[in-house]
Amino acid sequence: MMNMLREVHIRPARREDIRTIVRLLADDELGRDREDLSEPLSQAYFKAFDEIVADKRNLVIVAEAADGGLLGCLQMTFIPGLSHQGAERALIEDVRVDKHHRGRKIGHHMLDWAIGEARRRHSCLIELFVHETRFAARRFYENHGFKDSHRGMRLQLA
Amino acid sequence: MMNMLREVHIRPARREDIRTIVRLLADDELGRDREDLSEPLSQAYFKAFDEIVADKRNLVIVAEAADGGLLGCLQMTFIPGLSHQGAERALIEDVRVDKHHRGRKIGHHMLDWAIGEARRRHSCLIELFVHETRFAARRFYENHGFKDSHRGMRLQLA
Repeated sequence: MMNMLREVHIRPARREDIRTIVRLLADDELGRDREDLSEPLSQAYFKAFDEIVADKRNLVIVAEAADGGLLGCLQMTFIPGLSHQGAERALIEDVRVDKHHRGRKIGHHMLDWAIGEARRRHSCLIELFVHETRFAARRFYENHGFKDSHRGMRLQLA
Repeated sequence: MMNMLREVHIRPARREDIRTIVRLLADDELGRDREDLSEPLSQAYFKAFDEIVADKRNLVIVAEAADGGLLGCLQMTFIPGLSHQGAERALIEDVRVDKHHRGRKIGHHMLDWAIGEARRRHSCLIELFVHETRFAARRFYENHGFKDSHRGMRLQLA
């Protein structure tokens, strides 16, 4: 049997990945109505990407297949804070895996990478929001040691 | 009857506030074991504060009484992201109100300020974690329009 992990390479996202990442973000029951896939792609996505890349505390990574296709993405934010004795914490958001490639441990490989990066930076914890209805995702994170201890509350402004 | 809100002034935290903020963070059933209140205060707190102040996407605010005492604090982080059409989102963390001054709407006043700041920056949403067991806090945020739609999951690294 092939080692599926070998097929996937985790790397920081590049500007030419933006279109595919936005497609991944939109290909989701909750994300569908939030994104604008019209062509040419809205400049707002490029502007946001440039801001992420210029910020040493923000990072988007992608999972790239051997053929160059992008199979998944996630964003990390490293947050300086006074609590926990002044330790940095890490936030993970916008995790997506291409739905045609589920079961290949792509999410697992990205999360492993993210946990390793947070450890390398000495973050004291990693936190993330999962929509109440994403039961499989909740199980996935629990299997990686995450505790389901908090409520995630949200005020929509726009 | 006095207008209690008039007594309280919301402003960015200053370096000389750090000791009081750390005391507020520690004076809490969940935060108690996380902080180090020994004197002199650990340099890690000052280092973290300097990093927050130097970062245009992080902000600690305090609620200051007319007599100069600090009655509350919270941290905001503004997160650039690709989702939501490249909109920024705001995260609120480490909200504390001095327990001897509950019922004076200090939390309300700080949250109002934070929501106004997020709107001013055109953040598309504000998100926050509340520990499962903090029922009063959950009601407080719901009363301010927050939806209790997500789970907050956490992996402790240190």
